[in-house]
Amino acid sequence: MFQTFTATTNPEQGPPRLAALREAMDHAGFDAFIVPRADAHQGEYVPPSDERLAWLTGFTGSAGFAAITQDIAGVFIDGRYRLQVRAQVAEAFTPVHWPETKLGPWLLEHMDDGAIVGFDPWLHSSEEIVTLRKAVGAALELRATSNLVDEVWNDRPAPPNAPARRQEIEFAGEKSGDKRVRMAAILKEAGQSAAVLTLPDSICWLLNIRGRDIPRNPVVLAFAILQADARVQLFAEPSKFEALGPDPNIDIAPMTDFAAALTKLEGPVRVDRKTAPIAVSQILESACIDIAWGDDPCILPKACKNDAEIAGAREAHLRDAAAMVEFLAWFDREAPKGGLTEIDAATALEGFRAGTNTLQDISFETISGAGPNGAIVHYRVTEETNRAIKEGELYLVDSGGQYLDGTTDITRTLVVGTPTDEQIECFTRVLQGMIAISTARFPRSVAGRDIDALARASLWRAGLDYDHGTGHGVGSFLSVHEGPQRISRIADVPFKEGMILSNEPGYYREGAFGIRIENLIVVQKAARLGDDRDHLDFETLTFVPIDHRLIATDMLAPWERDWINSYHAKVRDKVSGRVKGEALAWLEEATKPI
Amino acid sequence: MFQTFTATTNPEQGPPRLAALREAMDHAGFDAFIVPRADAHQGEYVPPSDERLAWLTGFTGSAGFAAITQDIAGVFIDGRYRLQVRAQVAEAFTPVHWPETKLGPWLLEHMDDGAIVGFDPWLHSSEEIVTLRKAVGAALELRATSNLVDEVWNDRPAPPNAPARRQEIEFAGEKSGDKRVRMAAILKEAGQSAAVLTLPDSICWLLNIRGRDIPRNPVVLAFAILQADARVQLFAEPSKFEALGPDPNIDIAPMTDFAAALTKLEGPVRVDRKTAPIAVSQILESACIDIAWGDDPCILPKACKNDAEIAGAREAHLRDAAAMVEFLAWFDREAPKGGLTEIDAATALEGFRAGTNTLQDISFETISGAGPNGAIVHYRVTEETNRAIKEGELYLVDSGGQYLDGTTDITRTLVVGTPTDEQIECFTRVLQGMIAISTARFPRSVAGRDIDALARASLWRAGLDYDHGTGHGVGSFLSVHEGPQRISRIADVPFKEGMILSNEPGYYREGAFGIRIENLIVVQKAARLGDDRDHLDFETLTFVPIDHRLIATDMLAPWERDWINSYHAKVRDKVSGRVKGEALAWLEEATKPI
Repeated sequence: MFQTFTATTNPEQGPPRLAALREAMDHAGFDAFIVPRADAHQGEYVPPSDERLAWLTGFTGSAGFAAITQDIAGVFIDGRYRLQVRAQVAEAFTPVHWPETKLGPWLLEHMDDGAIVGFDPWLHSSEEIVTLRKAVGAALELRATSNLVDEVWNDRPAPPNAPARRQEIEFAGEKSGDKRVRMAAILKEAGQSAAVLTLPDSICWLLNIRGRDIPRNPVVLAFAILQADARVQLFAEPSKFEALGPDPNIDIAPMTDFAAALTKLEGPVRVDRKTAPIAVSQILESACIDIAWGDDPCILPKACKNDAEIAGAREAHLRDAAAMVEFLAWFDREAPKGGLTEIDAATALEGFRAGTNTLQDISFETISGAGPNGAIVHYRVTEETNRAIKEGELYLVDSGGQYLDGTTDITRTLVVGTPTDEQIECFTRVLQGMIAISTARFPRSVAGRDIDALARASLWRAGLDYDHGTGHGVGSFLSVHEGPQRISRIADVPFKEGMILSNEPGYYREGAFGIRIENLIVVQKAARLGDDRDHLDFETLTFVPIDHRLIATDMLAPWERDWINSYHAKVRDKVSGRVKGEALAWLEEATKPI
Repeated sequence: MFQTFTATTNPEQGPPRLAALREAMDHAGFDAFIVPRADAHQGEYVPPSDERLAWLTGFTGSAGFAAITQDIAGVFIDGRYRLQVRAQVAEAFTPVHWPETKLGPWLLEHMDDGAIVGFDPWLHSSEEIVTLRKAVGAALELRATSNLVDEVWNDRPAPPNAPARRQEIEFAGEKSGDKRVRMAAILKEAGQSAAVLTLPDSICWLLNIRGRDIPRNPVVLAFAILQADARVQLFAEPSKFEALGPDPNIDIAPMTDFAAALTKLEGPVRVDRKTAPIAVSQILESACIDIAWGDDPCILPKACKNDAEIAGAREAHLRDAAAMVEFLAWFDREAPKGGLTEIDAATALEGFRAGTNTLQDISFETISGAGPNGAIVHYRVTEETNRAIKEGELYLVDSGGQYLDGTTDITRTLVVGTPTDEQIECFTRVLQGMIAISTARFPRSVAGRDIDALARASLWRAGLDYDHGTGHGVGSFLSVHEGPQRISRIADVPFKEGMILSNEPGYYREGAFGIRIENLIVVQKAARLGDDRDHLDFETLTFVPIDHRLIATDMLAPWERDWINSYHAKVRDKVSGRVKGEALAWLEEATKPI
């Protein structure tokens, strides 16, 4: 099992560690110290050696940070974690509602003029520190330091050191050397001599490698410098990279050599202000090397999957769909008997995925929420919150797998027994949004922001909505959340062929039920139609039945109903050869026309 | 009749005038001179005394400009006017496709280094000239000058001098003094001593006056300075303002005093770089007065209509609806007989509007297009293009009225005889877009860009689209096109209660037919519904039947069909008391449920 359901922290651990940190702060001459959740690579998951926030405070959410002074220890968390933080941290910590309260004003409120605030420059991006400096002005001094938490973290785990493995060309679709030449051309075109790469998925994509350094996200933690002549310097334990084999264009050196290598560059060097640690730009500035601020050059090319990656995604999704169908058939058989819990379901689902014998990892912690727990958007079931799935309740399951040929992410909402009219109406409105995105076709310059409303219009008309984006980018056997593509009110990057996205509208009634329906989709050039304008549309990758017991057929437009029936026919066609027995019988029933 | 259909220019007029202008340029030491269509107030309509572009070139479109050198005379026009310009200008002029070809690069291509380009600083905004300066760099000198066209325009008409009249409080809904205090507070809040107002609709709104200086747009042409103490200096012929009556807080002076008054201000003075002539900022800069660049402070408050303005709009729209119903009944009676022309229809429609005895003007030149002419988005019928409306063709009519209580703008597309399946499908898709906007409900921060796709989704799904925005702002007995509100891919201003907009998706098949359906709508706080989120929605103002012979009922969602039937029931309910006889009988038939 990849996923466990036991708590990894407890509130009692915090106060003595907080006291030790405050002593270290005092000793080093700092009045405050910032403890982010991030590591130097700004990813969603961090290795145990970088779980400083959880170690110090007990809070295990996937986003947040702490600001520690001698008098107050603020734990900044967003709306998702308001309840969780109360259960996880001791009274010595003060939860702060972020982003309503921002760090700068909070520091100004709690500190005297002239106080010194320490931060680890490897754990904060340039943009983050620049924003904070603007907010505190001359009143406080922000000073970079070695990490004070690490000084007092005696039993800190060693950094991960899993071997890298090659992402075969069959799945990657483009040779690493060709990618490097392509990225180098971008740098040359911009008049830049090199780019600093600090995002593990950029580096893994560029070098066609994958790793096991952190859970859920099959990357190697490393830094890299891409030169405008297409050579790469890679910084991480050299022993990790035996699988790469020797390449005269790739120099591998320990991570400890990274800083020194930066000082030897000639400018202008491209640095991404949103993702690179501010330590990088500080080192370059100290060495008087010109910085060219710009996006990590790999981000956009990585987002636009090539034919091999799309073919891999199709196959990974069908394999995953077969596991989902087995799970759904099992669920429909077991749930009505009563007694099934959220953990039982999550465990069974992981078992079906593992049964494909190709599962490398799950792609994120499964969200398995029954009844009111389904309304908690980022719910993670633990032994403490585990709930039986009851008759008449909705059950929401959001999960995915990492396969060599692709990353999946799917949500289905199921009913046990007979749904209420209200559940049916809300489900149908969510489904209408999901169909609107699935069938969307649009001119080439359209971005996520321009179509987000299509997913919400049916809910909006009924005075309903959901407080999250409609879709996020998804990597190719990489991060299940990747940019720059997304579908949301703040998504300004135009869609391009090959971008994989989720399509996941939802509706959440607090204390009652949660609904979300999610397929992955990939942007493609639309077929010739109508006036043959240069349009893009989405190919659906996910083929798993949608619970037809929750659909109000009489609310649908004829074309929406056609879409459901056509979708289910394709599901049956594509997946029936991959399941047997009861699962096959269930599939045939679940995909009948409505 | 307000509208005429005869050509006001002819191609032969151009060459001798061009020769005279070139002589004046040579004499004054200019190698080129720019002739915009705009006057000093940057409106859509200009008085005859400012029709320099039409006088010089013969081109009468509502947008465009000319750039004249000794060797070439470029007439820059956008896609709407490619055909029209060829018919209107002599060979001495070269049509230039704008914005594909921009003025700066064109000047660089056609002029030697160091050449001097003249422009009238009262006819170009600061933004326009700054952009042009960036484009030409140091290669060309841009030099302000008195207007060289005026020097050679011997029979130039006198500037308009129509008397202003009061916009009564019954319609304006807020006393001018209260508006001035409200706007002055905005200036004070921003630390500004005054704002320069150059937009006639801002000035008319602020002072609760209207005028007759230009066609279609009931404004007074004037400049004004609003002081942070709420006093106003108004610049135009004082005799125009007798209707205003004396007000100790308003000083009226001739327009010739405006420049001198600017030099007496103390900064910072707010100037709108997008709309104020660059002469204004040049005068302030010469007098060393600080400029605070910022939007004309009246624009947003003017856009958000108060209760009296909305009540007026409702009444104006019902009066206008009755005239439209009489027209539509007449059309359905006459058109099938054959021989009816586009001009006949436009003339009849204006007659029905005039028959309300409350019509102050039409709100723009009526678009009356039969068959293929309907596919020309900004078609204006003339004696030359006038076309008979034939059996089996679609007829598109986009028109509006100026009434004391409101401005209307409505488009209906009608069929004579039996429509084809293709016409019906396209019409239904346009209607679905129009219904999607009519029924849209959304969170408060949503802007036009966020919902534009709702109007296009049904067309997009069929590979179709339309190449114009979905909606523009509309004034209150003011300009039929006003900002900042609009519905389009580039509309970033969030909707606010009271904004009036058009909702006008369309579809145009070149050489065959055009379809557009347009209602006006007003933003309101949405009724409590669902989760009672803070939502806005639209109240529909226009109540005129939509041609049900063109609707494919089986393409509609149940809620779309409900909307049509509910809309038509309201049309019948609201308008049947305002029409009689054949028109009433027609109305009852036209509003039957589908």
